[in-house]
Amino acid sequence: MPSGLRLDLGRIRAARRLIDPMFLDTPLYRCESLGRALGCTLDIKLETANPVRSFKGRGAEVVAGLLADGGGRALVCASAGNLGQALAWSGRRHGLDVTVVASRAATPVKLDRIRGLGAELELVDGDIEVARERAASIAGRRGIRLVEDSLDVETCEGAATIGLELAGGRPSFDAVLIALGAGAMATGVGYVVKALLPGAEVICVQPRGAPAMTRSWHERRVVTTDATDTIADGVAGRHPIPAVLDDLLAVADDAVLVSEASIVAGMRLLLEHAGLIVEPSAALGIAAILQDPERFADRNIVTVICGSNVDLDAYHRWVRA
Amino acid sequence: MPSGLRLDLGRIRAARRLIDPMFLDTPLYRCESLGRALGCTLDIKLETANPVRSFKGRGAEVVAGLLADGGGRALVCASAGNLGQALAWSGRRHGLDVTVVASRAATPVKLDRIRGLGAELELVDGDIEVARERAASIAGRRGIRLVEDSLDVETCEGAATIGLELAGGRPSFDAVLIALGAGAMATGVGYVVKALLPGAEVICVQPRGAPAMTRSWHERRVVTTDATDTIADGVAGRHPIPAVLDDLLAVADDAVLVSEASIVAGMRLLLEHAGLIVEPSAALGIAAILQDPERFADRNIVTVICGSNVDLDAYHRWVRA
Repeated sequence: MPSGLRLDLGRIRAARRLIDPMFLDTPLYRCESLGRALGCTLDIKLETANPVRSFKGRGAEVVAGLLADGGGRALVCASAGNLGQALAWSGRRHGLDVTVVASRAATPVKLDRIRGLGAELELVDGDIEVARERAASIAGRRGIRLVEDSLDVETCEGAATIGLELAGGRPSFDAVLIALGAGAMATGVGYVVKALLPGAEVICVQPRGAPAMTRSWHERRVVTTDATDTIADGVAGRHPIPAVLDDLLAVADDAVLVSEASIVAGMRLLLEHAGLIVEPSAALGIAAILQDPERFADRNIVTVICGSNVDLDAYHRWVRA
Repeated sequence: MPSGLRLDLGRIRAARRLIDPMFLDTPLYRCESLGRALGCTLDIKLETANPVRSFKGRGAEVVAGLLADGGGRALVCASAGNLGQALAWSGRRHGLDVTVVASRAATPVKLDRIRGLGAELELVDGDIEVARERAASIAGRRGIRLVEDSLDVETCEGAATIGLELAGGRPSFDAVLIALGAGAMATGVGYVVKALLPGAEVICVQPRGAPAMTRSWHERRVVTTDATDTIADGVAGRHPIPAVLDDLLAVADDAVLVSEASIVAGMRLLLEHAGLIVEPSAALGIAAILQDPERFADRNIVTVICGSNVDLDAYHRWVRA
């Protein structure tokens, strides 16, 4: 088991008890048709069949539960949309005031759903890194809890509960493909898989158009980028967090980059062979197989379908084109 | 609790133990956006995130498990596609030879998936009733087990395990809307709901273009029809089974018919508000709300999303039109 990390199995198991069961024990099943198309055996861990339609509900439940238990009343976060939606849902459940800072260019349906859940939404010009700065400044000014995705270990612990379900699931697997953004899911799931199924390969996948964390992993130091260019809005950060990179270095066996064309092809395959409409980030694992089929040939692969908050018009444009 | 039926809570609980966990404890969650659009509170029980993409895996597991335990080697069934796919999957798992008889006009993807799972597929000219006759004749000729959907109580018991999960779920509900075809799901789920949550209303929904069972329920006698005309292929029978009608009379509070336009509108709402691609039968519950919104206004409703085996081109034609 990797040691010296921020992550800990006991804490992850405790985190699980804070999460509304609605987000737990999500479907894990073999998709034979998709596996045949990809030349491997493919299992899907589906994180979209819940009220916020992404895996972020798990971490948000941990954050909001602990904050409310400690007497907290309010929180603010920056989000590309999914964390904001999840914290809005969990905050409401725990009686917390939630403020979400997002880019004006964020996916419209994500912003609509954040508002629909009753959170205060503040839009900024610029990307997620600008939103992070604004959220920090709001937290300081108002004296409320700043929730930082991946830096706050509760967000990683929440995501890590997916790993508990994968490791306890059946059938077993040779490799897990995990979308890599700020790193909460990749480090959390990767940690649990390495701890409980050390023989399984942990492979993180990021868009070529938003490669900061992947480059950082390969260079073993924080590498930032000036801009991102990807439809996978959920993973499009530029400033990797050092503590998260340290965890990722300890748990990931590889980090790979995929093209936009592969992401779209992955979304299309998930539609055609699994009947699933997913957001681009959720297709990163399939994209990785498409780009390197020999690496995965005839192996048992599992990938996390991490979100389905996608603008339908954009989806249609991408997938049907 | 209704009595004098073929169904029994103890047997249903025992049936649950025969079912691969992959088909059990499916997602049950509130869809706020869809509820707002419909003017009620709506929870979804999602039966599509499994290897056969419909609820039929539950009953097929019970049938195949019991048959294999008893030394059976082969079975034949008639199917519009979902039962055949499910029996092909469960039969393979239990080492049974499976023959599926289907209409040549059945949904192509359903037929492809039955073949893909290794079952023998026999096509007939005519509809499901013609397929039922042919399946019976094959069973007689080969001396193998004939599986008859809804008549074989194991198919109802398998479906009834959905009811156990609904009744044990949270939050509670005022009414459950269930697609009505031959009746396995409606009687099975209806029975358990009436037994465990007697205050909840059990409402069955059928297309106006395939109304035989609904008419039979209202007239309290078997009413057959000469033809069906609906896109909801999974529920398009013409010859209700007397024993199943008896059960339905005991457990259903109402049976309603919906138009094709409402079914399509329901599919579209499930896409737009829940991100779900479903087959027409799975939208019957939403269609019922659309046709009678006052009846459901401000009530807690749950509906079973029973399948997603749909031809994407047809889906596109229906929903985007």
